Amino acid sequence: MNVTEYMNGLGQAARSASKQLARANTGMKNRALLATAEAIESERDTLKRANARDLDAGRTKGLEAAMLDRLELTDARIDTMIEGLYQVAALADPVGGITDLNFRPSGIQVGKMRVPLGVIGIIYESRPNVTIEAASLCLKSGNAVILRGGSEAIQSNQALAACIRTGLKAADLPESIVQVVETTDREAVGALITMPEYVDVIVPRGGKGLIERISRDARVPVIKHLDGICHVYIDDQADADKALAIAVNAKTHRYGVCNAMETLLVAESRAEELLPQLADAFVSRGVELRGCQKTRALIDCAAAAEEDWSTEYLGPVLAVRVVAGLDEAIDHINTYSSQHTDCIVTENYTLGRRFLTEVDSASVMINASTRFADGFEYGLGAEIGISTDKIHARGPVGLEGLTSQKYIVLGDGQIRE
Amino acid sequence: MNVTEYMNGLGQAARSASKQLARANTGMKNRALLATAEAIESERDTLKRANARDLDAGRTKGLEAAMLDRLELTDARIDTMIEGLYQVAALADPVGGITDLNFRPSGIQVGKMRVPLGVIGIIYESRPNVTIEAASLCLKSGNAVILRGGSEAIQSNQALAACIRTGLKAADLPESIVQVVETTDREAVGALITMPEYVDVIVPRGGKGLIERISRDARVPVIKHLDGICHVYIDDQADADKALAIAVNAKTHRYGVCNAMETLLVAESRAEELLPQLADAFVSRGVELRGCQKTRALIDCAAAAEEDWSTEYLGPVLAVRVVAGLDEAIDHINTYSSQHTDCIVTENYTLGRRFLTEVDSASVMINASTRFADGFEYGLGAEIGISTDKIHARGPVGLEGLTSQKYIVLGDGQIRE
Repeated sequence: MNVTEYMNGLGQAARSASKQLARANTGMKNRALLATAEAIESERDTLKRANARDLDAGRTKGLEAAMLDRLELTDARIDTMIEGLYQVAALADPVGGITDLNFRPSGIQVGKMRVPLGVIGIIYESRPNVTIEAASLCLKSGNAVILRGGSEAIQSNQALAACIRTGLKAADLPESIVQVVETTDREAVGALITMPEYVDVIVPRGGKGLIERISRDARVPVIKHLDGICHVYIDDQADADKALAIAVNAKTHRYGVCNAMETLLVAESRAEELLPQLADAFVSRGVELRGCQKTRALIDCAAAAEEDWSTEYLGPVLAVRVVAGLDEAIDHINTYSSQHTDCIVTENYTLGRRFLTEVDSASVMINASTRFADGFEYGLGAEIGISTDKIHARGPVGLEGLTSQKYIVLGDGQIRE
Repeated sequence: MNVTEYMNGLGQAARSASKQLARANTGMKNRALLATAEAIESERDTLKRANARDLDAGRTKGLEAAMLDRLELTDARIDTMIEGLYQVAALADPVGGITDLNFRPSGIQVGKMRVPLGVIGIIYESRPNVTIEAASLCLKSGNAVILRGGSEAIQSNQALAACIRTGLKAADLPESIVQVVETTDREAVGALITMPEYVDVIVPRGGKGLIERISRDARVPVIKHLDGICHVYIDDQADADKALAIAVNAKTHRYGVCNAMETLLVAESRAEELLPQLADAFVSRGVELRGCQKTRALIDCAAAAEEDWSTEYLGPVLAVRVVAGLDEAIDHINTYSSQHTDCIVTENYTLGRRFLTEVDSASVMINASTRFADGFEYGLGAEIGISTDKIHARGPVGLEGLTSQKYIVLGDGQIRE
């Protein structure tokens, strides 16, 4: 059987299972999640043996240490997966929620009911725990899911899929609600993203190259962000302590994350006072600064080139620019930001309000570290990814982002006159 | 200049104008709408002369009568456009609305702010009044718009565009917020739907062929429905009077509309009682019935072929099928429906609740005519189109469907620990 036929088979099974899942109540879905957690606990050794086979193969293939680390299923990571399943089971079920049910002059009542999207395709790389994370969120939101993990994690992912099947069976739900692609053939990805009849949305998790390819070739919507070029703008009327704390936290709390600051903008009137303190804080933490001309007149650092303004360093490097004020800051951000997360530090009501309104990014903040742009910090309870698109879901995407709404109309026999 | 370059120019101007429009307050947008209404009133003769040129050219080209009718700008239609502009000005501004602003344990407050999508592309056919309707909804929702009307309406659309420019100028807004494509070259459509850097969403209004082509080739999301194969299911426990009134209204109130019923399903236990009455009502109104075998055992009508269940007649023809009960009705609907609008007639609480939950359509109704599936009837105040997709907007799409949301975070200097 060729890959396209195989993927079509998965798609058909997922579509059919999604219809049964849409009718499943919250109790059944939670039962499946908890039974999966129990299966992972009791199959801990099986999981570690399967993972060891992946690690051995990876070492033989010469995978780099960072990738082998991401691939490893330690006891702590297995515990985290189990804990995650309990957490998702404890979340409110978004499906079936009815909102805005109001009477109309005709006498009908019109409202909206939240419904699953249908079938989600997840494409990810080496971390096998994504299998459980993504499957649990799709299941709780009433969606069937097809998971395509990295070929280097195939044994681990299969073993985790077996635990999920055990969980689904325990709840009398069809096993094909969660399917892990069993071939490592690269064509499987191409097939998965081009079968709109079976797959409603793709969520890619991985490097920018992977996501760009998927976005370009997909025939269904893709929930994604390409990069996180996040800004902190220290305004004319910023509180100096808040400015320092936020700038340092946004850059140095973690380097390799999409919500870390990559460019710092400082109002000209405050540059002389604040830039030396900021430079001390960053340099003492090992952060390399690349500044504009005005920055370099005040502190000792390398010159920023044009491409620095649109670079996601994902490491201890920071671009710094002095701007005249709010207008120039907003212009800079709306030009160079990846529309992920941008922050103003200010005590001024009017300027803060303008920044909130005029910056066109998925998360816009006043006086808070960009590191807060995260599904857990926002109270979504979970996060399947972050979207910088404006269509459907924007910002951190939780259970609600995996659902849609339909209109419901309740009447007593009304007809149009 | 070639068409692609020309369209890129429009796109660039629209993108730039959309950024200015995003900052415009409600008062400015309303001023532009009202000044456009005044310009249409004072340019009534100019509009009619431009329209007469289109009508002359259409007659010379041998356009059919129905198309010439849709093309004509009568005084009544001009009045309706003016009235529509006043109505859109009176609608609440969706932009900037903040919802769900709640404190998190970290001390930050997280909420959502409604924002424009950016630039909308509208592709439509002969009716020039769509120019005003679509432009006013895009403007009110803070979006720049590029309008590509039918070549047969080019003079009328240009004249209307001039009125809109007058309105925008009166409100100190950039004229390129609303741009009408001035070339009738078909390549313009291809360019408009494949420039994601300048256009965020396409809304096609026209025949199924046009919309299929656009959906297939577009590189940006398309808000659309292909057809409206709507069902009424008369349940075992339906009230007979409601069933008759709803079925007749859903089919015969207007034939050529997407929310008209195309297939009637009747529970077997009620078929002998109701089908003869239904048949009398339909036949006396000139509706041709095409029935399944069980239907034809009870009433005199033609045999329905398999393709009748998936045909949008848009005329006085109705497919009729007898089903065992709710399960078979839901199966039929979820198989053949275009997921537009489907209705159950029942007095039974549990069956009604199951129908609402399990039918996977944009509008699902109990005891109300499918003809209510409409932005005005739903209280949206306006309608740019109807979507049968699950991503972004579903069902009738009003101002809110032309917007997105961003997260806003209000802090006092919080950092991630």
